[in-house]
Parts: sequence; C-alpha cells; structure tokens
Amino acid sequence: MKGAESLVRTLTGCGVEVCFANPGTSEMHFVAALDRVGGMRAVLCLFEGVVSGAADGYARMSGRPAATLLHCGPGLANALANLHNARRARTPMVNIVGDQATYHRPFDAPLTADTEGWARPVSGFVRTVTSAASLGRDAAVAVQAARTSPGQIATLILPADVAWNEGGEVAEALPVPSPPTASPDRIRQVAHVLRRGEPAALLLDGAVLADEAALASAYRIASATGARLLAPFSCARIVRGRGRVPLERVHYPVDAALKQLAGLRYLILVGARPPVGFFAYPGKPSRLYPEECTLEVLARPEQDAGLALANLADELEAPRVTPPDPGPRPEPARGRISPEGVAQTLAALMPEAAVIVDESISFGRGFFAGTHAAPPHDWLQIVGGAIGAGVPLATGAAIGAPGRRVIALEADGSAMYTLQGLWTQARERLDVTTVIFSNRKYAILLYELSQVGTNPGRTALDLMDLGNPELDWVRLAGGMGVEAARAETLEAFGDLLAQSFRRRGPFLIELVI
Amino acid sequence: MKGAESLVRTLTGCGVEVCFANPGTSEMHFVAALDRVGGMRAVLCLFEGVVSGAADGYARMSGRPAATLLHCGPGLANALANLHNARRARTPMVNIVGDQATYHRPFDAPLTADTEGWARPVSGFVRTVTSAASLGRDAAVAVQAARTSPGQIATLILPADVAWNEGGEVAEALPVPSPPTASPDRIRQVAHVLRRGEPAALLLDGAVLADEAALASAYRIASATGARLLAPFSCARIVRGRGRVPLERVHYPVDAALKQLAGLRYLILVGARPPVGFFAYPGKPSRLYPEECTLEVLARPEQDAGLALANLADELEAPRVTPPDPGPRPEPARGRISPEGVAQTLAALMPEAAVIVDESISFGRGFFAGTHAAPPHDWLQIVGGAIGAGVPLATGAAIGAPGRRVIALEADGSAMYTLQGLWTQARERLDVTTVIFSNRKYAILLYELSQVGTNPGRTALDLMDLGNPELDWVRLAGGMGVEAARAETLEAFGDLLAQSFRRRGPFLIELVI
Repeated sequence: MKGAESLVRTLTGCGVEVCFANPGTSEMHFVAALDRVGGMRAVLCLFEGVVSGAADGYARMSGRPAATLLHCGPGLANALANLHNARRARTPMVNIVGDQATYHRPFDAPLTADTEGWARPVSGFVRTVTSAASLGRDAAVAVQAARTSPGQIATLILPADVAWNEGGEVAEALPVPSPPTASPDRIRQVAHVLRRGEPAALLLDGAVLADEAALASAYRIASATGARLLAPFSCARIVRGRGRVPLERVHYPVDAALKQLAGLRYLILVGARPPVGFFAYPGKPSRLYPEECTLEVLARPEQDAGLALANLADELEAPRVTPPDPGPRPEPARGRISPEGVAQTLAALMPEAAVIVDESISFGRGFFAGTHAAPPHDWLQIVGGAIGAGVPLATGAAIGAPGRRVIALEADGSAMYTLQGLWTQARERLDVTTVIFSNRKYAILLYELSQVGTNPGRTALDLMDLGNPELDWVRLAGGMGVEAARAETLEAFGDLLAQSFRRRGPFLIELVI
Repeated sequence: MKGAESLVRTLTGCGVEVCFANPGTSEMHFVAALDRVGGMRAVLCLFEGVVSGAADGYARMSGRPAATLLHCGPGLANALANLHNARRARTPMVNIVGDQATYHRPFDAPLTADTEGWARPVSGFVRTVTSAASLGRDAAVAVQAARTSPGQIATLILPADVAWNEGGEVAEALPVPSPPTASPDRIRQVAHVLRRGEPAALLLDGAVLADEAALASAYRIASATGARLLAPFSCARIVRGRGRVPLERVHYPVDAALKQLAGLRYLILVGARPPVGFFAYPGKPSRLYPEECTLEVLARPEQDAGLALANLADELEAPRVTPPDPGPRPEPARGRISPEGVAQTLAALMPEAAVIVDESISFGRGFFAGTHAAPPHDWLQIVGGAIGAGVPLATGAAIGAPGRRVIALEADGSAMYTLQGLWTQARERLDVTTVIFSNRKYAILLYELSQVGTNPGRTALDLMDLGNPELDWVRLAGGMGVEAARAETLEAFGDLLAQSFRRRGPFLIELVI
C-alpha cells in the first residue's frame, strides 16, 4: 500500500471525514488516494486562507477536526493567518502539508521553503514524516494531538516520496486523553472567595461557552453569589439566544473595558486567560482588570471547565434557575441603516438554530447585545484578530452544521481578504447568507488613528479608504457564482434576509452603510 | 521626533520612495508619519499578498527597493508566499512589520505571534527594533542589506511603542557594497573549457538577464565558441524581443529538460544555480543536466556577472556580433484560441517597451518562444513557484516602470489567489492589461496527476475543476473597478488587446480557452 493510501485510511479511521484542500503537484498521490479510498469529503478552496479558515469553522460546529491539504511551504504560508486564528480559538485541526521528496529537498528547488519553521508557531504538534511505513502511525498521533484538550493544530509534513512509496500501514485511532479536572481544593477556594459577596465575575472561555449545561451551572453560581458572567471580546463559539444564559462580553476599546471591569475584586478564570487589550496605547494599561482585583483560576484552558462549574455550583449549593426572559422578539427595523437596526432585524428574522459568524468589526460592536431575544443560535468570532476569517469560517461552519442557516456578518475590508471562499459556498451549495457592511473604509483604523492624537492628512485618509474605486459586492459575488443584491434601507435588508432564509444555497447582501 | 517619523525620513533619505501598505492598528504612527513627512508614495493594497508581490514587481522594474507596511504576525504571514517568490527572484525589499508594543507583548494579546520566526525563512536580514533612538540606524542598515548584491529581503519589526516614542534620529544612507568580482583565474578556467569546442552552455540568471550589455557579452561568447545561451525556466526579468539576444529557457517538464540538456559536457553557471526539477517524480532524476556534464562557475549569484561575461568575452577575443534577425513581426492570429495564436497576437500587437508578467502556467509554455519577434520588451516570471504572484507583480511593475504598458498573462487558478490586486490597479489608474486564461481548471495539476500513473476518479477531477461554478472574470474585475471583456476568438482577443493599449488605466480580458 502506498503511503498516501495509508494516510487517508488512517485519517478516516480516526474520524477525520472532511478535507479542505488546495492541492499542488507534491500532493497528487494524496489526491489519488482520496479517489481510491473514499470516505473523505474533499472540499476544494481556491486559496489556502480559505482552506484553514473553513477547517476552523467546521471543527467549531462539528466538534471534530477536519484535515487540510496544503501545498509546500508557500501554500502553508497562505494558510497561516487563519491557522493563527484557529490556534487562538483552540480548534482541533490536522494539516497535511505536502513537501519536496526527501532526496529532492537538498537541491533547493524553487518551491522549497522552511515548512517546519512556518508551521511551528501555529501548531501544537509538527512532524515531518520520514517513511511510508511510519506515516499511518504519525497520522494517528497527529489526530490524537489535535483532539487533546483544549484542542490544537497538528501539522504533518508529507514529503512526496513518503506519499508515493510502498510500505504504508494503516494505524488505528489512538485514545484521546480526557481533560484533566480541577482539584477539589480549587473548587473550594473559589467557592470561599465567592461567598464573601464582594464584587466578582466569572470569565468563561473555550468549550463551556458552547455547552448549555456548563452555562446553566455558571448561571446557578451567578444567581447564588451575585457574580457577573463574562466572556472575552472574541470567542470561538457561544450558544445563546432566547432561553439561554446571557453573557456580557468584555469590551474592545480599552477605556470601555476598564470602565466595565472597574470595581471588581475577584475575577474567576474558567478556561479563560486574564483579559488584556488587543493593542497597547500610550498611557493606557495592558491589563483590563483593576490592580486591586485578584485573579482566581477555576479551570485552566486544558481542564474540564464544565465539570468544574458543576462542582462549584454544587459546592455553593446554588439552586437551579431559569435564565431571564429577554423580552419579546423584536420586529424587523425600518428606515435608515444603523447598527441597532441591523441587530434588531437580525433578531427578528434569523431562523431557529442559526449560526452567526461575526466579522463585522467596528460596525457590529452592538450586534451581540441586540440579538439576545432571537431564537437559540450560535455566535462565532474571529478569535486571533487576523482579519479574513469570516467568509472561510462561514463556509466551514455550513459543512460542519448541515441543515442550519449560517449568517456571516462581514466588514467589507475583512471580507476582501478571503473572498474566494464565496466560490466554495456556491460549489458546495452551502446555506450561507453573507451580509457585507459596505462602509468603504477601514473604519476601525480611522478610530485607531484618532487614538494616535493627530489630525489625519490626505495620505493617512487614503490608506483607510476603500471607496476609490468602490467595491461592488454584487458583482464580486456573482463572479463566483453566488447570487447577491444590494440594500440601502433596513426594509430592503429585511426582505433580502428573509428571502435568503427561504432558499437553499448561498446568498450575499451588500448593505451600503 | 517620534520613532515613526525618523523611520520615514530615513527610508526616503535612503531612496525608498514607494510604500505598498496594508496597515493595521499597530502601524498608525507610521501612517501618521507618512502624512507629516511626505516624499513617500503610499499605495494601498487590500491583501498583504498583493503588498509583497507589488513590491517585488516594483523593484524588478525600477531597480530600487520598495518598502512594505504589514500588520503584526498574521499580516506578515499573508505576505509570505510572495516574499518567498521575491527571495527566489533576489529582489531587494524592505518590510516594515508592525508589532505589539514591547511592554504589551508579554501579555500575549490575540494578535501576538512569532513575527521573527515567520520572517526569517524569507529574509536575508531580520531585526526587531528596540528603541526609537536606534530605529533610524536600524532602517538604514535594513536598506543597505536589501541593496547588497544580489538583492535580498530585509525585515524590520517595529513594536508600536518604538514608533510612537520620542527620541527618533534620522540616519544617513549607508554605502551599498559593490558586488564582488569573479577572479581572473575563474575567467581563464572557463575560457579554457570553452575553447575545447565540446558541447557547452552558459546558464544565465539574475541581473545579467535584464542587462543588454551583459547579454551582448554573452552573445559574443556564444558566437565565438558555439556555446548555447540558457536561462532558467523561471526568471525575475529578461530583456528581449527584436534586436536583443535570444535565450533558450530550460524546460519545465523533467523529461523535456533532460532531452534539452542531453549531451552537454560543460554547463557554465553565470549568476545561476545548477538546474534541478521543480519537483521530484518517481524514477526520474533531480538534476536536469547529464551526469557527465561538468559544472563551472563563472560568477556566483552575488558576484558581478556582467563584468565576468565582459571579461570572458575579451579573454576569448570574441568579436562583437549583432543578434540574429528574428524574422518579420507576425500579424495577429485569427480563429480558435490556441497557445500559438495567443503568442502570435501578442507579438503582433504589444507596444514598444511592454512589460510582460507571465503567470500563465501550463497554457503559456510556448509564449516565450513565440514572442521573440515582438518589439523590445521585458519578461517577468513567478520565480519561487508560489502561484498568486502575477496580478501583484503587474501592479508593482506598472508603478516601477511608469509610461510602459504592463501585460499580465494569468492562469485563472493563479489569478484567484491575489485578485485583490486589480483594485489597486484601478485605484492607481495603472496601465495594466490583464489576460486571464480561463480554462476553468488547475490544468497543470491534471498533467501532474497523469504523471502519478493512475486514472483520476471523480474526487481527483473535482479537486482540479474550477468550472462548477464558472468564475466570471468580467464581473470579478468590474467589482473592483477594472473594466473587462470576454473573448472567445483570437480576433476578439486582438481587438480587445489593441483597445486596451490605446487607453490609460487597467483593463482585463477573459480569454475562454
């Protein structure tokens, strides 16, 4: 058996069923093996940044790692920004990166690059496979590494001759270790702190945000102790909406976050890291919590935070409580387009179990708060801050959560990074509604420039201006086979949104704001 | 003076006059300094792969390094594939990569990444600046490094506080060392070999390919000794066309290249590296030259190969000769679209001093041979083999060679990687004619798959198929403000080509093949 075949068989045997791919010459044996073996859905993407972002979205929704198929060093390089985002989201993923044949590599042919060097900063596991005989075992270890809590990126570098050589052996799936549990001492210590009744908050991150039972435990704790429930500004996946536990997200602007967390005496980290600013600003602190606030770790990111929350709620003898009623579901908004009106219209119209991918950057800061009264839905964000995540995430999420409508909320500048993902949505007929917030500028940078304290001149303004020429998203989407339309009022937006939910396949709405 | 201002003043003082930019928050002080200082043309690109490819194209045509402005680690990551290409093309370039403030970095905020680790494999020089006071000097050293023969990529990582702190000092330009010269012994040894009259070839690469005087020396040598004149399959820039020295490029397919170089006894490397296959194939050699062929180095890549050629021609007492007449300029071809017909039409219609950017991959293999009778023009290629170079290269070349028509020959699959470059062409009103060879497949991969020796099945074929849905390049270009039209015959192609040459600004022709 060729190495490539042993790889495909091992991956499918380990439960890896989808491969997002942009193959090149050195991956042809893997492609041929996909053909022969079956059992792996191959999804073609026209740029590697789409490949890695889609694998991230798929895993966030399905809970299972996808494979990526990438071509040599530069192909991996194109995937890195969304691998960075996936790493920050603790997404399990198995990258298969083709490379020069082992004996050809020393000749330093044009595409030869430092593949391992580029892979390492985003990967929890990197291995260059050296023989067809070991490839199956290496792949099983990679899947195991990817699935080990809290989830990580495993990169397998596959020299062409390792793929084409005979002697491949299929390996069995390796057991995935259970996440470590928080010690009873930790639970008691946090309970002790919370019983004091001083201003406290639980900051939740990771799998608990997508786990209704864990959020219910957190809500018991909050209700019994008065502690606030917080989530980071950017989260991999939050289950929310009507009937679910409401969470407050830490604000992005440093001043707003400092105000939000002012007065806290205890911040309990539940799978979360201490909140810090996305960026530093002259004269402003890096930490977003008060100096006098004590950090307590209930569960580290790799620990079972859901169990820790349940144990803490029991330790506190906190009664079960029903989440508060978010009030009546709003009606679609009318008139001029505003962030509040968009949020209201989304809340009014989104179907049950929608998956929201939020890369709306500056325009969408209020969307989260404005959509809690919507039917139950999931909220996915760009966690690592590298823009260009949204269109790919939505693409992968639709494959990871079939039957659910994905709604991608996209800033125009961010969507341009990886617009090629729209083509894959058309090809795979994915139920994705993309909303482009077309402000024709890098609005967040205008805000950031204002923080610099100088009046921007022509050069600076030009560098933030996407309006010359204006991007025409209806044509861009149409050019990739995605039907699209433009809306300039909230009524038109609502009509298009509702239309898109009634049909199968992708649709794009350019919202001129 | 703020660090950022000292940086801009130092760069312009060192002759860096263009900055291709996709800034982010941490670069706002650099942007503000661009405003204040003047003298640096800032060109906005909507994706970092366009930034780095455009800087490559600019430097290839102008001979001067451009600066790039990139945002943190993931922004650099998006630029890496085209930095890889630029490194292989030995292009001088100065990257300014913003980063977290020095004191904020330990907090590992979401966008924090291993910026140095990603930069190193593509850079001849990497430095993270540590203080505003040293920034000017560090920048001068970076420009010097970029300009040192044979040209390299210098990456300066700029923490936000280094940019915003006071204490910046403008540094003067540092002298660029002259390229080392080949020793008289080398010249005599190569002359000795060539006088034997055995089958020999000179393989030229680097600056000599863009240097008419150097090519004239090479042609004297070839005429006097019978040696063939070769260039690698992929070259940064070749000056060619009517009245110029014709060069034979080494073929891409291994079998064809082996046949082409069969029988050679001596291969003289002139700024070139030994020719090897782009990829390895089972049972085929890595080296493209015969085992019995002796390699002789006339000039290493960093040496002055033009001088070495002149000295060798003199040593051989080779008379000056006029390049051969390539025959009459062809008429535009008619009828069904074919590679030969496209080449003929290009040769017939391209204006004097056109700049051809060739990323036509499989369809364009014969374009080079078919255009030698065209007026004098330059030929630029994707040197590192990482597709997605062409649209950005053309964008930068048009800025580096104002007044000359740039013609980008683009495979559809490759053009999709960095299509965002079209927007910058529209914004800057660049004289670029892009021709998309729309075969709606990864044709080169179908060829490569055929080399694997199996009959491709549905999965494999799907992974090479860009036709479902079809990309509509007229709409894609229009969506970014570039006028475009489709051609399905050679007559229509010729008409659109001629039209595009008569107007200013960009135009795109989708050639359905």
